[in-house]
Amino acid sequence: MIARPFGGGKEFALPFQMRTVDLIRKKRNGEELTDKEIEFLVENYTRGAIPDYQMAAFLMAVYYSNLSENEVTALTLAMLNSGRRVDLSDLDGAKVDKHSTGGVGDKTSLIAAPIAAAAGVVVPMISGRGLGHTGGTVDKLESIPGFRTRLSVEEFRANLNAHRLCFMGQTDEIVPADQKLYALRDVTASVESLPLIAASIMSKKLAEGMDGLVLDVKVGSGAFLKRQLEARKLAQLMVTIGRRMNKRVHALLTDMDQPLGYAVGNALEIMEVSQTLQSQGPADLTQLSIELAARMINLANPGPGLEAAREQASALLASGAAFTKLQEVIAAQGGNPDVLNQFELLPNASGAREILSPRSGYVTRINAEDIGQAAVLLGAGRDTIDRPIDPAVGVILERKVGEKVAAGGRLCTLYHTDDARLEEAAQLVEDAFHISAAAPEQRQLVLEVIQ
Amino acid sequence: MIARPFGGGKEFALPFQMRTVDLIRKKRNGEELTDKEIEFLVENYTRGAIPDYQMAAFLMAVYYSNLSENEVTALTLAMLNSGRRVDLSDLDGAKVDKHSTGGVGDKTSLIAAPIAAAAGVVVPMISGRGLGHTGGTVDKLESIPGFRTRLSVEEFRANLNAHRLCFMGQTDEIVPADQKLYALRDVTASVESLPLIAASIMSKKLAEGMDGLVLDVKVGSGAFLKRQLEARKLAQLMVTIGRRMNKRVHALLTDMDQPLGYAVGNALEIMEVSQTLQSQGPADLTQLSIELAARMINLANPGPGLEAAREQASALLASGAAFTKLQEVIAAQGGNPDVLNQFELLPNASGAREILSPRSGYVTRINAEDIGQAAVLLGAGRDTIDRPIDPAVGVILERKVGEKVAAGGRLCTLYHTDDARLEEAAQLVEDAFHISAAAPEQRQLVLEVIQ
Repeated sequence: MIARPFGGGKEFALPFQMRTVDLIRKKRNGEELTDKEIEFLVENYTRGAIPDYQMAAFLMAVYYSNLSENEVTALTLAMLNSGRRVDLSDLDGAKVDKHSTGGVGDKTSLIAAPIAAAAGVVVPMISGRGLGHTGGTVDKLESIPGFRTRLSVEEFRANLNAHRLCFMGQTDEIVPADQKLYALRDVTASVESLPLIAASIMSKKLAEGMDGLVLDVKVGSGAFLKRQLEARKLAQLMVTIGRRMNKRVHALLTDMDQPLGYAVGNALEIMEVSQTLQSQGPADLTQLSIELAARMINLANPGPGLEAAREQASALLASGAAFTKLQEVIAAQGGNPDVLNQFELLPNASGAREILSPRSGYVTRINAEDIGQAAVLLGAGRDTIDRPIDPAVGVILERKVGEKVAAGGRLCTLYHTDDARLEEAAQLVEDAFHISAAAPEQRQLVLEVIQ
Repeated sequence: MIARPFGGGKEFALPFQMRTVDLIRKKRNGEELTDKEIEFLVENYTRGAIPDYQMAAFLMAVYYSNLSENEVTALTLAMLNSGRRVDLSDLDGAKVDKHSTGGVGDKTSLIAAPIAAAAGVVVPMISGRGLGHTGGTVDKLESIPGFRTRLSVEEFRANLNAHRLCFMGQTDEIVPADQKLYALRDVTASVESLPLIAASIMSKKLAEGMDGLVLDVKVGSGAFLKRQLEARKLAQLMVTIGRRMNKRVHALLTDMDQPLGYAVGNALEIMEVSQTLQSQGPADLTQLSIELAARMINLANPGPGLEAAREQASALLASGAAFTKLQEVIAAQGGNPDVLNQFELLPNASGAREILSPRSGYVTRINAEDIGQAAVLLGAGRDTIDRPIDPAVGVILERKVGEKVAAGGRLCTLYHTDDARLEEAAQLVEDAFHISAAAPEQRQLVLEVIQ
């Protein structure tokens, strides 16, 4: 033991320190914590009895030492128990949600959820806001004038009862431990830990009262996880947590090496959602949304099989039933459902800037992270959680990977209202497009399914 | 990027967070920080601009990712620059200190320093209090009635000028960064990091104004470092830091598999110091003290060589010059120098309890940590920095490793004033002694020298 400097001992008056330091040390040494020990940490941290500095050290130890399946399940449960759970047991039918780890142009929730709800599935969807280069479902919906996502748990339940689908923003009542832990991880560089990510996602989803969950784990340049190996590990962790909690979970690893669809930006994405629900959407977005909806339908009612669920999902899209369902939900949450037909009712940008191709050839790559960052520069996203966003602005791609473009042909258009960082955004987008003489190999959209 | 929960973002109003989190992430990813970056962290943490939770995460990242030689040197320098340095440049002669990483019964500082000072070396000794099972030099000296270790830097300089040796307790003025960092490491399980230990020790020693330093790195059951490999790494780190700061450093790895000498406990150790300075001390303590003193003399004046320094140190011990020097220093710092001849002037325990051998044989092992812990139970040490200690109590060994003992023969005596935990201490001490039929192999006291 090294002698501690006399007189320099900071006074730590809080209780639990002795026990907490032992648990940090245990994890640091790579040992497995018991369920009770993890519960102790989460419960006391949430109520302020364990200080931030001890939890920060613990989280960094987890980053390096990892968590076992037992530990990550115990962590999820402890986080879940930190707040209120939504009880949907008295609602008829299976409750199935869909969650994406976040991608650029990813608006599949707004298409797959109405399809599933139109098929009779109850979809309790509590979503986050975007941070960084990927947009959040709540931000997209709030570009619809009047749309309310700040609901009480009671309103959420009532809307689900009436319409089978409700979109709600996150609230302090549900999983407060996650909110506190996430904020701490964000400023202490322990966000990128797979078990911490898995426990964060699963605790929130379990708190919604769902029976099944379809996970869309994005992989590639536009995703949080750049490598398929890591995405697979995360998916496996979440499927395991689900199984241990007796919930059915399907996880799809999907390609995020280019943006999904053509639109990136909040109101622009609502327009693309509308087009897609009217069978006029981009092929990749349509295909993935139907696959996710089919998985939701299949989890709710496995009997007829996945192929039948796919056919049902396609039919509900083609018939306009899903479109009608989204209109119904928009109206129910205070929005004007006419925005889906009259885009001039949505916020519109005041300026447009075209980005042209410097040469002819094939688009071989579109760096999705750069496109997302350009949208953030235009005001579509935020770097810090309290910054307001501009719902009107964003990027519309004119070419996607594999398509031909002529020299001087349009690659994309930037929609802006404030040109302060327009040049910076334009440069980023120009660099994001890679043009070559040879056509690239075709990539699969769904890379892998883990269930 | 995973969406951050809305509304849950804790408000962090402090500046520097963005930059700090990038530096934590850089270290976490195993990259090397620049001198400027380390300076940024230490300076802003010391003045309170970087919060504890970020530093806790950084320290845990250092625990796992380690620090390069460049980084540990920059850290030492930044810590050194956090407070006041003692300027001894106008004092004649080389300034050489000696530091031990802490062992049970280790009172070599009180013997080697007077020898070196008697040889003309200036010995500026700022020491810590004990924490855990190893005693601190300041605690031992304070068992001498009237002895003052709470000195101002001015008093310290004046005493060094007059007597060439002064013992001072740690103060807030010197290396405040270390005090703050150590307190945080203590409650976040990042004490056991070799670069953090090295920077902590070296920053304090460099702040003393020393030109050279002899390090006694203890290895074994009674030491902080149980394995020679780790002790070697720590010694190499400290020698490297010294070289980069243009200071001469010799590091000795020495055996701490049994207590050093026979006495463990503050006043008991002062008595043993006195005996040793009068050539009546235990062989191991005498040998190591002379070796350390010789290294101090050699660092101050390398010309004549180490062997000559050893002869000089032995002669100054034998002549009583070192004994006289310690008496002089005790008087200068307010203590009664007669304690060294009249032990009844020192605090004396009221009770004694003999521990007898259950069988005859050779002592093959004495677990030093258990002996140290027993002394703590009797009141000789503290578990927390603010607990008072009892200077009178402790353990006197009657047998050391390699010696024979008869069945029922005395192994050691516990000196106590309060018998609340006496039985517990007695049990611990009994278990600490291993008695076997065969004599153990002889161990070397100095295992290795790194310079």
